[in-house]
Amino acid sequence: MSQPARVATTSSNLIELECSACGKKYDASQEQHLCTCGKPLLARYDLKRAARTFLLETLKDRPRNLWRYAEVLPGDPPVSLGEGMTPLVHAKRLGASVGLGNLYVKDEGLNPTGSFKARGMSAAVTRARQLGAKALAAPTAGNAGGALAAYAAAAGMAAVIVMPADTPSANVMECQAFGAKVVKLNGLISDCGKFVAENKDREGWYDVSTLKEPYRVEGKKTMGYELWEQFAGKLPHVIFYPTGGGVGLIGMCKAFDELEQMGRVGAERPRMVAVQAEGCAPIVKAWEAHQSSAQFFPNAATIASGLRVPGPLGDQLILSMLRQSRGTAVAVTDNEMLHAGRELASLEGILAAPEGAATVVAAHILAGSGWIKPHETVVLFNTGTGYKYSEAWQKAFEA
Amino acid sequence: MSQPARVATTSSNLIELECSACGKKYDASQEQHLCTCGKPLLARYDLKRAARTFLLETLKDRPRNLWRYAEVLPGDPPVSLGEGMTPLVHAKRLGASVGLGNLYVKDEGLNPTGSFKARGMSAAVTRARQLGAKALAAPTAGNAGGALAAYAAAAGMAAVIVMPADTPSANVMECQAFGAKVVKLNGLISDCGKFVAENKDREGWYDVSTLKEPYRVEGKKTMGYELWEQFAGKLPHVIFYPTGGGVGLIGMCKAFDELEQMGRVGAERPRMVAVQAEGCAPIVKAWEAHQSSAQFFPNAATIASGLRVPGPLGDQLILSMLRQSRGTAVAVTDNEMLHAGRELASLEGILAAPEGAATVVAAHILAGSGWIKPHETVVLFNTGTGYKYSEAWQKAFEA
Ligand SMILES: Cc1ncc(COP(=O)(O)O)c(C=O)c1O
Ligand SMILES: Cc1ncc(COP(=O)(O)O)c(C=O)c1O
Ligand SMILES: [Zn+2]
Ligand SMILES: [Zn+2]
Repeated sequence: MSQPARVATTSSNLIELECSACGKKYDASQEQHLCTCGKPLLARYDLKRAARTFLLETLKDRPRNLWRYAEVLPGDPPVSLGEGMTPLVHAKRLGASVGLGNLYVKDEGLNPTGSFKARGMSAAVTRARQLGAKALAAPTAGNAGGALAAYAAAAGMAAVIVMPADTPSANVMECQAFGAKVVKLNGLISDCGKFVAENKDREGWYDVSTLKEPYRVEGKKTMGYELWEQFAGKLPHVIFYPTGGGVGLIGMCKAFDELEQMGRVGAERPRMVAVQAEGCAPIVKAWEAHQSSAQFFPNAATIASGLRVPGPLGDQLILSMLRQSRGTAVAVTDNEMLHAGRELASLEGILAAPEGAATVVAAHILAGSGWIKPHETVVLFNTGTGYKYSEAWQKAFEA
Repeated sequence: MSQPARVATTSSNLIELECSACGKKYDASQEQHLCTCGKPLLARYDLKRAARTFLLETLKDRPRNLWRYAEVLPGDPPVSLGEGMTPLVHAKRLGASVGLGNLYVKDEGLNPTGSFKARGMSAAVTRARQLGAKALAAPTAGNAGGALAAYAAAAGMAAVIVMPADTPSANVMECQAFGAKVVKLNGLISDCGKFVAENKDREGWYDVSTLKEPYRVEGKKTMGYELWEQFAGKLPHVIFYPTGGGVGLIGMCKAFDELEQMGRVGAERPRMVAVQAEGCAPIVKAWEAHQSSAQFFPNAATIASGLRVPGPLGDQLILSMLRQSRGTAVAVTDNEMLHAGRELASLEGILAAPEGAATVVAAHILAGSGWIKPHETVVLFNTGTGYKYSEAWQKAFEA
């Protein structure tokens, strides 16, 4: 680990960073990445102080983006493109097909750059700018690259996106449009991650890799806060989340814990369902084997590029959150995703990313098996817009 | 004209429909299309009654979509996918490049189906369902088709989309995904319009062609209401709008008139700038020749498919609104659009539709000429997401 180089004054209620594994504390006013034990750090706030103003009623006057949850975010001037506050659509027709009367789709495709990745990058770039970073770097095989490049552009910062050579051209294009430097490597996302790690000190890059800096999860946790706000202070019974690195799932569970500590919800939690692709399902494999950590998934392959994460750094966190919430993990095939994508589009008018469509398949399975009761409130996360996957959908509809 | 066939109870403050040209009144509780004089009808409300509850303060509690403006919309149960309330981004870096300190981008690409067309279709499909329509039909060369198909799907209604054979494949794909019937014709959008007109009675289609039914403009006018709300009760000095059929422009001007009648703004208006493509600029030609109606623009061609409307039905309305608001009309080339799209993306992190990028070019021109003062508040409408134009952008970035 290199020494933290960049410093900013901690504002707002942010107190410190804490290792998610060993509990070691870190100074949040300095640039921090992983714990010395190798595990991700999480941001800790003065939630007692936050609770004073954090009420459904006071939120009404706030900006219509994720920065409305100011009490539980770093207090820097935000780099914002209007991320968050995405629609929660009551999917009645899909619900009838699945056998659920209270089925909702949270449509994250309506975020800037077309995916929920915008949330994490808005927070990460905001904090990186405050800490004095000049150039941001991350490995990605999909939507994270465009999001990083867009927020870096908005902030006037340089971005370096390291991608496998077989990344869909639309994802490469957006990075170039935003003026980022794109490095293509023959290899997997794990190789791209290595490239960033090996070059960042020499090049002066601020590493924004998934869970290797603590603020992307802070941006993504706002999905959990929004559910609470959109359900008027309640939480749903079940949440289906397409899980790659797992940051969205980890973030939402963190949000629910913070809400409880602020006295806004009780001890009950939504049952979290991690949905993965059969071609890359390390979490599902570990879950089914009752393990507390995941093994590297060999020959990872799926059209849902965001789920092609064979060795997620947050595996232990994800698995413990599934356990604690009495959730589960489900793997679905690419074919099932494509079929479900068509069902979602034709019944609800939502053209989803394959990752989002995967949750529809999983909902069918778990409603069919009785794991979900027909009256329970269920949320499917469509994490990205289908318009970034035009070619895949075109092929599917021709077939 | 065929007889109005479908009836619904008029709820809310909607009183009647009025011809925009001859003033003739029509019953809003029945299906209506054009006036017998051939011109578009506009919805009229009891604005005195609407004004009682239509206040910035009361709006805070409303749903975060365009149906928050319930007092000035038809009162039917909405068919909604979360359209509207799009971000208004303060574009500081682009502003510095253009020479404007208060430059904003209204990012309509974050609507369902990736364009502002969702607004119009949400309103039109809502009303059509209430009126008992079963199948909806419209001609389109671009984003309107996907929007219609999506809202029809959400409403459980059939949709027939008639498209020129050379429509970009991504736009065809979305219609198919949403389960619409796609008819491809060798010809222009005007030929597609004729096809709908000739077949609708026999097939029982409800015609949702631009301005041929009165509610799409109602949905689109909410862009004007949102500006008012997002600027906290003020209106900007100048609005740049990429103008094809002109419904967005007409709708916003209607919104400003309604706001004045409700006592929420004064007599001053934003100067409206209609931006068109050099390859299809009927409004700009008429404007420069000081005419009050436009001539059919021959051999229309531009990559900005939404601007390829050679004979807009609302020409007189558009031209009179430009005059009344002391606005103007500007044509830009496809090359300029592509260049400006890159500028917008790399400075602000917004990947726009070419139509949206066109407004950046026009802003450069009018700020450069002194037509806009540096301190004036200026809004550029990015009407669609760039992700639906991946191929065009890819080519542009390779060049
Ligand atoms: C569309 C989409 N869905 C889901 C994921 C997985 O996200 P997470 O890291 O939160 O598991 C990604 C990540 O790239 C994605 O792009
Ligand atoms: C992206 C985009 N911008 C602008 C327009 C023009 O819209 P209007 O009819 O309001 O002039 C369209 C219409 O298709 C469009 O798709
Ligand atoms: Zn540790
Ligand atoms: Zn008339």
